[in-house]
Amino acid sequence: MTKIVIVGGVAGGASAAARARRLSEDAEIIMFERGEFVSFANCGLPYHIGGDIKERSKLLLQTPESFLARFNVDVRTMNEVISINREEKSVTVRSMLDGSEYTENYDFLLISPGAAPVVPPIPGVDNPLTHSLRNIPDMDKILHTIEMNNVEHATVVGGGFIGLEMMEAFHQRGIKTTLLELADQVMTPVDKEMAGFAHAEIRSHGVDLRLSTALSAVEYVPEAHIASEDSGEDAAHQHIHGHLDLTLSNGDTLKTDILIMAVGVRPEIKLAQEAGLKIGELGGIWTNSSMQTSDPAIYAVGDAIEEADFVTGDATLVPLAGPANRQGRMAADNMLGRNETYQGTQGTAICKIFDLAVASTGKNEKQLKREGTNYEKVYVHTASHASYYPGAEIVSFKMLFDPQSGKIFGAQAVGKDGVDKRIDVMAVAQRASMTVEQLQHLELTYAPPYGSAKDVINQAAFVASNIMKGDATAIHFDEIENLSEDQVLLDVRNPGELENMGYIEGALNIPVDQLRNRMNELPKDKEIVIYCAVGLRGNVAYRQLVNNGYMARNLIGGFRTYKFAKA
Amino acid sequence: MTKIVIVGGVAGGASAAARARRLSEDAEIIMFERGEFVSFANCGLPYHIGGDIKERSKLLLQTPESFLARFNVDVRTMNEVISINREEKSVTVRSMLDGSEYTENYDFLLISPGAAPVVPPIPGVDNPLTHSLRNIPDMDKILHTIEMNNVEHATVVGGGFIGLEMMEAFHQRGIKTTLLELADQVMTPVDKEMAGFAHAEIRSHGVDLRLSTALSAVEYVPEAHIASEDSGEDAAHQHIHGHLDLTLSNGDTLKTDILIMAVGVRPEIKLAQEAGLKIGELGGIWTNSSMQTSDPAIYAVGDAIEEADFVTGDATLVPLAGPANRQGRMAADNMLGRNETYQGTQGTAICKIFDLAVASTGKNEKQLKREGTNYEKVYVHTASHASYYPGAEIVSFKMLFDPQSGKIFGAQAVGKDGVDKRIDVMAVAQRASMTVEQLQHLELTYAPPYGSAKDVINQAAFVASNIMKGDATAIHFDEIENLSEDQVLLDVRNPGELENMGYIEGALNIPVDQLRNRMNELPKDKEIVIYCAVGLRGNVAYRQLVNNGYMARNLIGGFRTYKFAKA
Repeated sequence: MTKIVIVGGVAGGASAAARARRLSEDAEIIMFERGEFVSFANCGLPYHIGGDIKERSKLLLQTPESFLARFNVDVRTMNEVISINREEKSVTVRSMLDGSEYTENYDFLLISPGAAPVVPPIPGVDNPLTHSLRNIPDMDKILHTIEMNNVEHATVVGGGFIGLEMMEAFHQRGIKTTLLELADQVMTPVDKEMAGFAHAEIRSHGVDLRLSTALSAVEYVPEAHIASEDSGEDAAHQHIHGHLDLTLSNGDTLKTDILIMAVGVRPEIKLAQEAGLKIGELGGIWTNSSMQTSDPAIYAVGDAIEEADFVTGDATLVPLAGPANRQGRMAADNMLGRNETYQGTQGTAICKIFDLAVASTGKNEKQLKREGTNYEKVYVHTASHASYYPGAEIVSFKMLFDPQSGKIFGAQAVGKDGVDKRIDVMAVAQRASMTVEQLQHLELTYAPPYGSAKDVINQAAFVASNIMKGDATAIHFDEIENLSEDQVLLDVRNPGELENMGYIEGALNIPVDQLRNRMNELPKDKEIVIYCAVGLRGNVAYRQLVNNGYMARNLIGGFRTYKFAKA
Repeated sequence: MTKIVIVGGVAGGASAAARARRLSEDAEIIMFERGEFVSFANCGLPYHIGGDIKERSKLLLQTPESFLARFNVDVRTMNEVISINREEKSVTVRSMLDGSEYTENYDFLLISPGAAPVVPPIPGVDNPLTHSLRNIPDMDKILHTIEMNNVEHATVVGGGFIGLEMMEAFHQRGIKTTLLELADQVMTPVDKEMAGFAHAEIRSHGVDLRLSTALSAVEYVPEAHIASEDSGEDAAHQHIHGHLDLTLSNGDTLKTDILIMAVGVRPEIKLAQEAGLKIGELGGIWTNSSMQTSDPAIYAVGDAIEEADFVTGDATLVPLAGPANRQGRMAADNMLGRNETYQGTQGTAICKIFDLAVASTGKNEKQLKREGTNYEKVYVHTASHASYYPGAEIVSFKMLFDPQSGKIFGAQAVGKDGVDKRIDVMAVAQRASMTVEQLQHLELTYAPPYGSAKDVINQAAFVASNIMKGDATAIHFDEIENLSEDQVLLDVRNPGELENMGYIEGALNIPVDQLRNRMNELPKDKEIVIYCAVGLRGNVAYRQLVNNGYMARNLIGGFRTYKFAKA
């Protein structure tokens, strides 16, 4: 009889427990959780705060009782594993209820402790109005503060998934919100020019977005303001906690009623480290592809571990639910004698930002640059489904690839419809080692309500293949500001579009449909840098000019990419 | 200077013309179209009839003038190519306006004549109230009949894409509609049990769906009913065309005001056949993978040709817009000296049926059976995104695969949300030759509004892998009616579910969470056939029983698959 002890009862741990029981009826399975709850919907927490998920109970997917009934797993909440005794294969457990300690031996130990929110040592940050969001008690505290402090202004520090979701939650409750982000963009999995669409969306909802701005100091000003009903104040308008005076890195100050710290998470490695398990260079628990730590009897999964990056094979930290769940299942397989190997993590991710979805898979351009990888990129902006059918929205799509081999490095998409689908297509294609040329042949669902005969992905692949074959010479948005005297900027849109949408200073304007007759207005001894709205007409113009002996380049993604890069 | 002549100015032809011009500025390109319109949105026609697409002009994507301005293509509408003179490399053209004839020579000829609606020789079918729908004039005639005949009841023959879309268009206009289908299911690309969801959806909207029913005879009864306003009839209520008396294959009769024949299409091969080009066994124009016909100077693309099936390599007829567009682009490449090869057609397709999407890619089970292929299948029914986040809908998903190699044969999905995405994922995975085991590792976008940590596709792959590894023994819905005396049917749902959802006659009921304690109620010498709602709890019960020495099988897809197979 195999005895499996699991530390942590959320995504990875709970998946492992259920799988282990399905594989073996006679294994003894004990799952320790230091918190009160197991298997709760941690990704749903911001949506309950914002009100989308009305009932708190919907977040509680399983209870110790339901786990016992269905999977015969001995779930011990409020029990914290405080040390691992590897030699005798046991753990020491402390009951959070009465402080008592006891040991439990194991044949296999699975640690799935997760990652904890990082709270930088900012002066004054430790106060009753400042919260992080990791679990149900955190959520309850935030909701309590919102109510008790009658919050009218909230500040969120950090523009990652949780920061963005909390920003939206506050906004949805009618609370004025400031979002501070140290970097020059939110949502770092995508590149800055793609984040520009998110910046515009966030600002259009009245959120006070401050990029390249850090929080320097916090001062907690307690108040015990009791509403004076005699002077006309509403009885509900009473603050019993006070407010915070924030000082920002640029010297600005800000008064706020609640502060959420969401700058990132750090793997919880204390238990593993103290037990002498190998810790990786990035600070996560080291595992091999079987999810085994440096001790073969101890497995680890989820946000606490380092795993292999799918593209490079290097170690990476990916605190996401999908990998955690699949790793937990796989660790159970291996503890019970199977031989499953983890296939690496692409980091496929998506975030809802008001009406927009922002998503990515694989490597972004910042990473490729940092690693010195030779890459090319394309942008397309095209309708999520047939544009003549109601409800079509523009999908803005970026694809990164190896211009020699056509290997897919990564993809990013932003838009109000069909974004998840396009990134899923790319995540599959990348995992299957397809090349960008092969993406031309993808045969995706098409009917007017769902897609286009030439889908976003087909179109991006056409552009990429054109570049690889030399049928197109690309220029990118970040090169436009530095044109030389040997280059002429040509806008091939219709004059009305320049007026309505804006244009790039200094451009000539010849609409593409007049170009054949007006080509002689252009110099043959300079390079014509063409742009249109999204790059499509630019390509038609480019082909005309080049086939007539001109030197030319086409702005990939057109004016739309250029414009939102500045947003 | 290369001279390219194109026959047919819609999807394949128009794509080829535009691509040819982008490749070559000095090629002479002439595009003949016997109709009045080029490059119109043929997939949008039913949606204009139904009112979703309000403006007819939205369907007209290009005009001869716009084609000339942008692509310098000589577009000749109302000009029909009536013969090909291969030896002298010329075509004979007849003007539809004045009947004059002339010839035009070519270096390369591309034929893209499409496919014509099949109208079976049913007695009386040729009458003013019976229409097919292929192009703008057909659409205009249908709209004209609806208005002039004050249509209150419509009959559609054929439950394929166009038939279903026309059914919905009529329903949306408030017209009572009957849909006749000769087969025992609509939407033949999916299998009957998956079409069951569509049948239920169609009937829930009050459409009179008659399966396994053919149209035998039509009688046109002209009327000239003028509304008698004196007797209280509305002035608008006047019929000037009459009605149709339909006789059905089962002897029933039906009175209707308009009849749409949508039983299928047939490749237009007359021109090719008369020119002596090779016609394939399925009745389409034969082409090689370069889109070349048996005459190397003549290319053919689109609905008129036979192409290679992606899965089997056999010839297939796939009248869909996506392949036509990509083939047209590729034919242009090859006419201008490139060397592109078509990679086969999976037949990826989707149809909107009221609130439901029905989609598929690759081979269906009917085809696999017909070809004698050894296959296995799985069904999952799972939420389109995190079930605790608002708006989640069940995706019903079927996957067909080789139980030895794990090769993907095909996939089908039905539901109100996220159906296109799942079939796109499968279309990519199939094209990339992934196995069902590899699908377990797919890392798809997950945040509560978009997906689940274990997506529909991951879950289907888990079930398939369990079967392949022997961790699950499947039984399918169509075997349930024929259980032997050595089998015991066990329903592991909660009693309330049996009451609300129905159950299979003769089943024992032990809820899964009580099974460990009540296992002794089950016989060890019989096979326990387990089912639950969708197969998930059934698998938990299956594992318990088998690990305790019972013989068991689990109904894949659970009661939901069983129930809708009868719909």
